[in-house]
Formats: sequence, C-alpha cells, structure tokens
Amino acid sequence: MNVAIVGATGYGGIQAVNLLRDNKNYKITYLGGNKSSGSKWSDNFPFINLESDNLIEKISIDSIAEKANIALLCLPNGISSTLTRGLLEKGLKVIDLSADYRYKSLDEWKKVYSNEAAIYNRDDYDLCKEAVYGLPEINKNDISNARLVACPGCYPTSALIPLFPLLSQGIIDNEGIIIDSKSGTSGGGREANQKLLFSECGDGLSAYGLINHRHSSEIEQIASLITGSDIELLFTPHLMPMTRGMLSTIYGRLRDPGLTSSDCRILLDNFYRNNSNIKVLPVDVYPSTKWVRNTNEIHLSVKVDNRNGRFIILSAIDNLIKGQTGQAVQNLNLISGLPLNNGLEMVNHYP
Amino acid sequence: MNVAIVGATGYGGIQAVNLLRDNKNYKITYLGGNKSSGSKWSDNFPFINLESDNLIEKISIDSIAEKANIALLCLPNGISSTLTRGLLEKGLKVIDLSADYRYKSLDEWKKVYSNEAAIYNRDDYDLCKEAVYGLPEINKNDISNARLVACPGCYPTSALIPLFPLLSQGIIDNEGIIIDSKSGTSGGGREANQKLLFSECGDGLSAYGLINHRHSSEIEQIASLITGSDIELLFTPHLMPMTRGMLSTIYGRLRDPGLTSSDCRILLDNFYRNNSNIKVLPVDVYPSTKWVRNTNEIHLSVKVDNRNGRFIILSAIDNLIKGQTGQAVQNLNLISGLPLNNGLEMVNHYP
Amino acid sequence: MNVAIVGATGYGGIQAVNLLRDNKNYKITYLGGNKSSGSKWSDNFPFINLESDNLIEKISIDSIAEKANIALLCLPNGISSTLTRGLLEKGLKVIDLSADYRYKSLDEWKKVYSNEAAIYNRDDYDLCKEAVYGLPEINKNDISNARLVACPGCYPTSALIPLFPLLSQGIIDNEGIIIDSKSGTSGGGREANQKLLFSECGDGLSAYGLINHRHSSEIEQIASLITGSDIELLFTPHLMPMTRGMLSTIYGRLRDPGLTSSDCRILLDNFYRNNSNIKVLPVDVYPSTKWVRNTNEIHLSVKVDNRNGRFIILSAIDNLIKGQTGQAVQNLNLISGLPLNNGLEMVNHYP
Amino acid sequence: MNVAIVGATGYGGIQAVNLLRDNKNYKITYLGGNKSSGSKWSDNFPFINLESDNLIEKISIDSIAEKANIALLCLPNGISSTLTRGLLEKGLKVIDLSADYRYKSLDEWKKVYSNEAAIYNRDDYDLCKEAVYGLPEINKNDISNARLVACPGCYPTSALIPLFPLLSQGIIDNEGIIIDSKSGTSGGGREANQKLLFSECGDGLSAYGLINHRHSSEIEQIASLITGSDIELLFTPHLMPMTRGMLSTIYGRLRDPGLTSSDCRILLDNFYRNNSNIKVLPVDVYPSTKWVRNTNEIHLSVKVDNRNGRFIILSAIDNLIKGQTGQAVQNLNLISGLPLNNGLEMVNHYP
Repeated sequence: MNVAIVGATGYGGIQAVNLLRDNKNYKITYLGGNKSSGSKWSDNFPFINLESDNLIEKISIDSIAEKANIALLCLPNGISSTLTRGLLEKGLKVIDLSADYRYKSLDEWKKVYSNEAAIYNRDDYDLCKEAVYGLPEINKNDISNARLVACPGCYPTSALIPLFPLLSQGIIDNEGIIIDSKSGTSGGGREANQKLLFSECGDGLSAYGLINHRHSSEIEQIASLITGSDIELLFTPHLMPMTRGMLSTIYGRLRDPGLTSSDCRILLDNFYRNNSNIKVLPVDVYPSTKWVRNTNEIHLSVKVDNRNGRFIILSAIDNLIKGQTGQAVQNLNLISGLPLNNGLEMVNHYP
Repeated sequence: MNVAIVGATGYGGIQAVNLLRDNKNYKITYLGGNKSSGSKWSDNFPFINLESDNLIEKISIDSIAEKANIALLCLPNGISSTLTRGLLEKGLKVIDLSADYRYKSLDEWKKVYSNEAAIYNRDDYDLCKEAVYGLPEINKNDISNARLVACPGCYPTSALIPLFPLLSQGIIDNEGIIIDSKSGTSGGGREANQKLLFSECGDGLSAYGLINHRHSSEIEQIASLITGSDIELLFTPHLMPMTRGMLSTIYGRLRDPGLTSSDCRILLDNFYRNNSNIKVLPVDVYPSTKWVRNTNEIHLSVKVDNRNGRFIILSAIDNLIKGQTGQAVQNLNLISGLPLNNGLEMVNHYP
Repeated sequence: MNVAIVGATGYGGIQAVNLLRDNKNYKITYLGGNKSSGSKWSDNFPFINLESDNLIEKISIDSIAEKANIALLCLPNGISSTLTRGLLEKGLKVIDLSADYRYKSLDEWKKVYSNEAAIYNRDDYDLCKEAVYGLPEINKNDISNARLVACPGCYPTSALIPLFPLLSQGIIDNEGIIIDSKSGTSGGGREANQKLLFSECGDGLSAYGLINHRHSSEIEQIASLITGSDIELLFTPHLMPMTRGMLSTIYGRLRDPGLTSSDCRILLDNFYRNNSNIKVLPVDVYPSTKWVRNTNEIHLSVKVDNRNGRFIILSAIDNLIKGQTGQAVQNLNLISGLPLNNGLEMVNHYP
Repeated sequence: MNVAIVGATGYGGIQAVNLLRDNKNYKITYLGGNKSSGSKWSDNFPFINLESDNLIEKISIDSIAEKANIALLCLPNGISSTLTRGLLEKGLKVIDLSADYRYKSLDEWKKVYSNEAAIYNRDDYDLCKEAVYGLPEINKNDISNARLVACPGCYPTSALIPLFPLLSQGIIDNEGIIIDSKSGTSGGGREANQKLLFSECGDGLSAYGLINHRHSSEIEQIASLITGSDIELLFTPHLMPMTRGMLSTIYGRLRDPGLTSSDCRILLDNFYRNNSNIKVLPVDVYPSTKWVRNTNEIHLSVKVDNRNGRFIILSAIDNLIKGQTGQAVQNLNLISGLPLNNGLEMVNHYP
C-alpha cells in the first residue's frame, strides 16, 4: 500500500511517519504540508530516520492521487473536507483524523464547528453519511469495507471504549454520566500558541471548554447511537503539564447496585477479550498514563462504591497514538485487509 | 506570640517558617524535628533566611512549652495525638495540621486511620470532641475561641469551601456529588518515597485511593454536618506532574434547574464577599493552579448545563498554603485575635 | 514616584506589576501594551490584584509622559529606541530592559542585533554613550545619577556578578573563560512560539546559539571593560524544561594555583559583603535554581581543582527577577534615591 | 541465548526487559531481585508485557547459572563483585552495568568507591584486569572475545564517544578539557530518595559532585589510556527536571586553530561512518535530548570559535539506553556474535 501522509509536520503527521516508516506493509510515498513544502523530511526532522527522505509537497489532490492509494489526513478541522471528495473520486481511500466526518449530520458539524463552517463552505452531506466512525474495536466490519473513515477525537476514544459495553448492554444508567478528562499538551497541536507555551502551562493545570467543548457533542452523538436514546453527559477536559497521555475518570451509576468492582471488571474484560491492545486491569490497580505512553494500548480500571452502586472507571491512553494516529493506523490496517494491530506492538519505555 | 513549629523540616514546616518569619506579630521561638535535631535551620535550608537561625530540637512537650505559647504541629498522622494533651495542659494552644483531630469521633478516626491507630494507642475522645475544625471562612467564631484547632486536609478544603454555601442553603442535591481532584506531588510530603520520585511521577499522571481515600470520609463527615443528613459522595484524587497546586472539579445537580451559571456565581460571591482570599471568577473564566500558587487564595468558577441543571465547579488552591499551612496561619491569626488574613497578602509570581 | 510600565503584558511587565503593586514608594500610573490596549489589567490577569486596575493603553510618548516620572520599558529589542529620546526630553527617567542601550557603541549593537537594526533606523549614538549599564551591585553610583539605565541581559547578569571581582582584581586568567548557562523557558518571552511549546521543550533540553549568541558579545564587552583587555570567552546557553530560573556554570583558571576553594569563597564573600541579595554559599554547598526562585537573590558557589588551579563557579538566579525585572527595580530604587533592595525582600516558597 | 537479568526491578532491569523481550535472539530465562523476590513480573509491572511472566527470584549464583548463559548485572555498585567470579566459573559470560570492573586497577576502584569498598571486601584484582571496558564503537573486538564486560557510566559514554577520535588522533589539546553534563533524574535510580522527589527536583536544577564526582576519574582513566598521557579535566554533572536524557557540552581547544566547524564535523563523521547509531549533525544543528530519547543513538554537533580555535561539542544520549542498558545490549550482541545494533532499531516517539 502506498500511503500519503497529508499534514506531515504536525504531531499527527510526525507520529504517522514514526508508526509506518518501518512497516513492510506500507510505503510512505507522499508527504504533504503547505508551510514546509519544498524542504526534505530530514531538514525538518533530522532525528527521525525516513529512508526515502521524501520532499514535503504542497498539498494537492492530484499529487496525492498520483502517488498513493490511501491518504491519512492529519489536518486542521475543515481542510479535510476540501480534499476528501476529490481523493475518493480518484479511487483513493481516505482516513481522516480531523472532525470533518465524525458527525452523521453535516448540519450538526456546522453547529459545533461554527468557526470552520464559516470558512469552508461545505455541502458534502452525502460524505458525512457515508463516513464510518473509526473506533475499530467496536466498528471493525464497517471500517474494513469503508472508503472514508472518520477517526474519533482523543477524548471520545478514551471515554467510549469503556462506556460502549456498559451502555450497549444496559448495565448503567444513561443519565448522569460524567467524564473528567486530563490531557497532555500535545493534544493542542504543534502550531505556535501562547496558551501552550511551557511557561504558561508548565507546573500548573486548568480546565477548559466546560459544558460546550466540541468533544462533548461527539461523545453524546455516539453514546446516543449506542443506546437509542438521547444521552446528555458532562465532559470536562483539563490541560496537564505533560506532553503525552490522557486519563479519563468516568463516573456513573449501575442499574443493578449489587454488581461489584470485580463483576464489572470481568464484564469489560470479556467484552474486549479479543482486543490485545485493551487491557482491563485487576481491581484496585490504577493505570498511569506512563503505562500506555508510546503504545496503542488502552488501560481500564473499574471500581464500584458498594454503598450505592456508583462506579468510577479510569481509562488511560497515549493521546497521540490510541487517541489519534495509532488508531488511524488500526483503521488503515482494517481497510487494507491486515490484522487490526499490525505494526502496533510497541514499547512504552518506562519510566 | 511565641510560636513553635513542630516538624520543621517537612513541607508544612518549611512553609510555616516562610509564612511567619517576616511577620511582626509572631516570633518563631522553637523548631522541632527528630531526624534533623541538633542542626541549625541554616544547615538545612541555607536558602531560607531565618534571622534567629534556631537550632532544630528533639521534639518534647517540655521544651515546646518552655518556649512557645502556640504550637503548630506539622507532623505525620498519629504523632500529634501524643503531644496535644500535654501541650494543652501546659496552657499552650495547639493548631494541628494532621488528621488526628479532624473527626469528632475518635472511633471514626481509628477506622479510617487504622494503620496509625495500630501504632498510637489513643483514648483522647474528649479532645476529638473539643477540637474545632479549622476551616476559617466558615468556622470563624469557634476557631477564635478554641484551644485546639484541627486543620482540614487539602482536598477537603478545596471541596468544602465551594460546597458549603450550596449545601447549607439547600441549593443542590445532597445526592450524587462528585469531586475529581488533582494535586501536586508536594501533598505527598518530603519523606523519601519511590512513588513520588521525579522519574516515577514526572510526565504522567494517575489516580489513587478510589472510593476509600481517607479524605472521602472527612469530606462526607463535614458535608453531613452541614446538611444534617448522611451524604455519600465520590471523591477521586489524582497525582499530577507538578510540585504545588490543587484543582478540584466538582459535579452535582441544582435543585432548581432554572438557575444559571451567573445566578450560581452571584450566590457564591455574595456568600464569601467578606473573604478577600476567596475569589469567585466571572462565568467562563477558569482558574489555573498557577493563579493561586504561592498565595492563600482560593479561586472558584461555576458553570451550569442549562439542559438539565447539572453544574461544574472548579476550585483552585495552593495545596501547601490554603490547603495546609496558610490555612493554619489563618487559624493562628484568629486564635491570636488578629485579622483572618494577617500576613497572608502574597504574590503568585506568575508564570 | 509615578511609574509607567511599558509592555505590561509580557513576562517583564507582569513581573514589574507584581514587584511594584504593593510598594508604597511607587505608584503604577501607566500600563502600556499595543495588542491588549483598551482592556483593563484585570481582564488580562484576573489573578493578579492591581488596586488601580489601570486600562492598558496604546504606547505613546505623550501619554507615558503625562502620567509618569519614570518609565520601565519591558519591550522587544529595537522598540525602546523609538521611545527613549522622547521620554528623556520630556523629563522622564528611563529604565530599559531591552538590549537597545547595553552597548556603548551603537555600531556594535547594529552588528549584533542586525535584524532589529534593519527595522529600526537608529542614530542615537549619544544615548548609547550616555546610558549606564544597570548592574547595580557594581555600578551603583553611576546608576544613581543616570537618566537612562540599560538593564543587563539575564545571562550576563548571572555571569558578570561572580566574574567581576575575579577579573577586576586579576585573580583569574583573562583567557579561556567558559560560561555554560541553563535557562528556564520564560527567558524566551510570552509571545506564541513553536520552539517554546510545552510539547517541544518539555521533558528534554538542548543548547542554542553556540558561539554567536547575542549575550556572548554583551558579556565580552563588559569583561573587556573590567580588565582593560580584549576578552574572548565561550558562552553556551541551554533551554531547560522549567519555567523560571537560571544556573550558570563558569569555568576558568586561577592565576595563583595555590588558592583554595575556601580562599576564593572568602574573596567573593568579602567583595559583596554589603549586598544582602548576593549570597556566597559555603564550600561544597551547591545552589538549586529553586533556592532563588521568586527572589532577587544570586547564589554563588566556588570550587577549585587543587591539582591545577582550575575553578568552577555556580551562579543561580531567577531569570525574571534578578535576571530581569528585579534588577530593573534595583535600578529604579537607586535612581529614586531609595535603598538598593527596597521592596525586594521576597519569599522563595520552596518547594 | 538464555539471558539472566539480575536486578530486574530497577530502571536498568526494566529497560533490559523492554529491550530484550521481543528479540528472537535472546530468551529471558531468569529475573533476579531481592526485595521483590517471589512476585511475578506482571505483579510489579502490569504494563510491560513479558510473555514468560517469570517469577522474580532471590539472587544466587546457582540459580542464575542453572538458567542462563549470560548474565546482565543491573545492580548497585559493589554487589556485582560478589557474583561475578562465581558466574564466570560456572561458564557464564557477564555483562556488568555497575562500576565494579570499570577500573583496570582495583585499588583505584577502592579509592573512588570507598564507601562500597568498606562494605565489600574485594580482592578480585585479576578480574578487574581481565574485564573489558564496554564502549562498543571503540572497543568492538575486545568485547567480542570477552568473558566479562564492564559497561561504562552514562556520563563517560556521552563524553568519550566524541572525545575519542579527537584525542586519539591528536586533534585537540589534552589540557583544559571541560565536560558540562546535564542528566535526567532516572540516572539516580529507582530507590526512594528525598533528593530525587518530584517536589525537590521538579521545576529547578542544580549541579552536584563538583571536581570529585566518580565519573571524573572514569573519564580521565580512559582519556589517559587513549592519549598515553595523564589527562586532568573538569567534569560537572547537573540534575535536570526531566526523567530521561543526557546532554554533555564539551569544551576544549584545537591544536590547529585553522580547522573549521565543518572540518571537525567531517572528521567525526568519517570516524564513526560505520556506526549507524552515531549521528554527527550538520554544523549549526544542535540536538535535543528528545531527539535520542527511547533510542540507542548518540547525536553529536561540533562548533568552532574561529577567533581562537576553541570548540564546543554537544553530545546527546538517552541515559538509560545508550547511557546504560542499550549499550549493555550492544555488548551482549558482540559477545553473542550478533551484529552490534541487533534489536536496537528504535522509535523516539517525538514529541
């Protein structure tokens, strides 16, 4: 498979190069980036050895289509929508890491991403309908047959994997779910940004986007699809003084308050027993984000308050891998007919 | 006032010296510490200028009583209980920063602090009853007249200040309160500890003590006193890769779902309008722990989900100041007949 | 004294507000900043209480002169030169924190700051000659009588204070001096900057500006003035994963190889015995940047290799205080006829 | 090859498991550790998947010899000397990561490691003589034929690789070499240690061990061997607020001051052209420790001060890989007849 990495010099693109460069099943045949176009990969990243040392090219549908069968779009929101139809028409498959095709309804997207909607005059309602939500542990078959995969946001990934079995099997109340998430700064991207300066966010932490963060509606959309009823939940993202990693602490209530921590652990473990990258930890073992750093794993731990059937789930991922590019590579594997976790056996390099 | 700082070389003690050394109302006349006894202050901390450069002494009731009128006990849990009666009997007032007198019921303490209870054979039921819980913005009069003040834990401080007005006035449901707290590593103290090594907790984060952290029961005890009914809540502490600071993200539900974020903000602001160290931020302004670092302030922000009356409160403190020694100095001020925030006007030194 | 802080929302300006707002000798009567003009201080920094809550104004000589007697210019290089003559002509005194007046020779400045020289068409040779280099422990009298003070860079401050006594008294070789400096990220300012993102500079470190960093020539200029001979030295700045603080490790050779560490310590200590903010540590005690953080102190430690008379000096400062705004306030004090360290007794808040 | 990892739960041991567990050429057949003996690997490190999930055993020569052909000793200084002769006698090869066999002269070791010498009553002069210094890029043949390899310290590794070609070819003065090194905290190990607490060493930095750090004499010993003359140099280690990584900034003087940065770069590049893990960067490109993190690479950059022939070399490694266990695996490869960098092609996972 010849793969185009479009948006190669952001964190998504860098991670994609790092995940694919030694994988014999894929060949990186195109690197796209507007600001750095004309320079070689090694000019930008002398410390990441890419054998082919491709030139970074100005992004254009034609040049992508000429060189690749599949495009990974690691681009800011809105831009993917200007490329996707063209790429699909030229026969490529598209794996989009932005939010552009995460909503079944383009109108919903326009409401949530109103700034981008004001810039990009989208009418690709059909593509929004067609796109498959790329949570591969849950959506494997659809992804395998898709032309266009919309990779989930990092926060939704960390929340939906533990919630899916519980919601779909009716184990927990639909009402009153709370997701308190903590993310490393790399989730904010590589563009210069005062708020993400070391001096600003080092040695401190804060919440942002209360109630109306864009990922709230993304999580609610999927949770509602799972349950068949309108889910309203509280999601609060926090910015942590660390580069990589995400921990979501999820609160809710069991329908059957008699279930124990151990019962819930077994339930999650059974549900994901065929997914080697999902690890349900023993009761009372709580993951650090360092346990999953540099890997595509998700570590889960569940604990029930015996007094009242309330529960807490901890869910740890590497925001740039399982939360972003590693998940995209899982989707790439499925779309290419390869095993889900091909090329994703990684080393966390603790500490 | 002659003040004894007992446990002078831990973070509580260091902070106490830093807060009191330039305060004309107090004189530090005794520094106690068993491991470092015999050395001078400046041998241990050449970078913190203490005019008197006291010798650090082996801890004994007699030597404390000889030199001081008030003792700040900055000691590990359990040890305070071996000193307190003796100090009170010699006429000193005692401000205890440990958990020893936070529970009205010694039996409850023995249950929660079972390890310490196994070491220290306590029967000071009377002192537990007598001790005043040292949350000065709420408990001012009792503290002013107390002989023995039990300073709250850092987590309870960050949670109870925002919850007090809402619970006491019946604004919010007693049921379903969730406190998701994030603390800097200094909360774990200065003793050598593998889990608190930079290499272990740097660049990552994790939760600990789910459901049964000791501060859960402390918060529940006070919340139950406030409301007159048994409160069960979920409290989850997290360890952050930063030295100082604590942010608690508190979730619950309004009894009147028609209240707006602005209504709630006004309510909190009015309640604490005479407390210059409690700042209720404008709606949609969210505090960083860096905003309160090195100060005795607490910054609050509240946001309501209009769809369903659920709310989020953010509460930021410096865990070593408002969460520990700054609060102890507030109590020291009250007990000494001085204004609450005397000597606590501090500079946060952003960034 | 009515003080104008020009460039109020960068780290220099924020620190200036924090240092002066509670000082009875000064009144902050003007805050200038072009990007944030029209907003109030509290809109920008709700967490730094400035009683007067001034409006931030567009920067103009007239409005500064109308409101203040002294201007602190906390501006990017080049801009100060567009304001200084006007301010002096209107009778103000000027304390410039940029590099604009650090060189006696404007031509030298134009060579070193060639980018800025291309933008700002300077011909203020006279002011460059007139300006006094604001290293107050060394240059006290000249500063007291100056109209225009050029505050040193942070790196030169950390290097020149220990080197001055040794060079001026001929204790060490002029040749072969090496200054290996490590700075926190706040030295790079508060403008959005990819290289200073937490994700880029967190959990790693690197050197920059080898051989030709601008501060090399600044240090060499002053060292040459001190010794009366052309000094060539090696200076290497490094960017550290921390917000505040600077440590310079300085290497050289004693002229008399028989001098011990203790001899050198005594020599430095005697030289600076009247400067309470310069602390020469006991032999074998090495400062952490955390010892001086949030203070205007400089901590020095010296160690000699007995085998060959080579020595190492460690020099620790807070880059934003002694390395920048604290030093500016010292100069402000001198120029105002106040004691050097007036208002600069600060608490480091360890840890 | 059956490999014993002795000292499996320290950072050396963890890293060894991570480097070897997926390598088909080696089988981890023994894990040793006294404190954790009796527990399974997964009990200690649920996040590092070791297929065999060995029991961690009490350390004994017999049980190591029973299960393995080669032993990696990841132990505190002194302990290796109690195991090595026994293991060699039973026919094992030994790769020691401690300092026990780094000195040709046991008497020198006893002087430098006097604390350990007081505990361990060593007389293995013959083994000290026999042991090969395991810097594989320089010492390849000797290592290939050795029974006992003494892996270099992390600081010596970072310094000696760039200095070796320059010293051995007489390019630089033997006199006046300065090595200013900056290390992450993981170099201090995983034992509980107050000085390495996050709260103590986070957000600050300091130097330690001036003049007489143990690695000074190790570097001097090897540099003297290379040049055939007694080398005295200055080496200063610094502790950085980061977990992994080491940067050494090396200063010296060229014998021929006419050599340019580019000349020196070419010289280093040629010398190491067959070592894929040594990367000599283009002139004016300076490595971050993040460029080599999680890899066995060493990145070098050299810059000459044209005015006087002084030079600066930057040398970046991951202190736990090239500085410790990665280098041990290189030695393991050589001793096993495998290619030097077998199994060491790694991904740095920037950022």
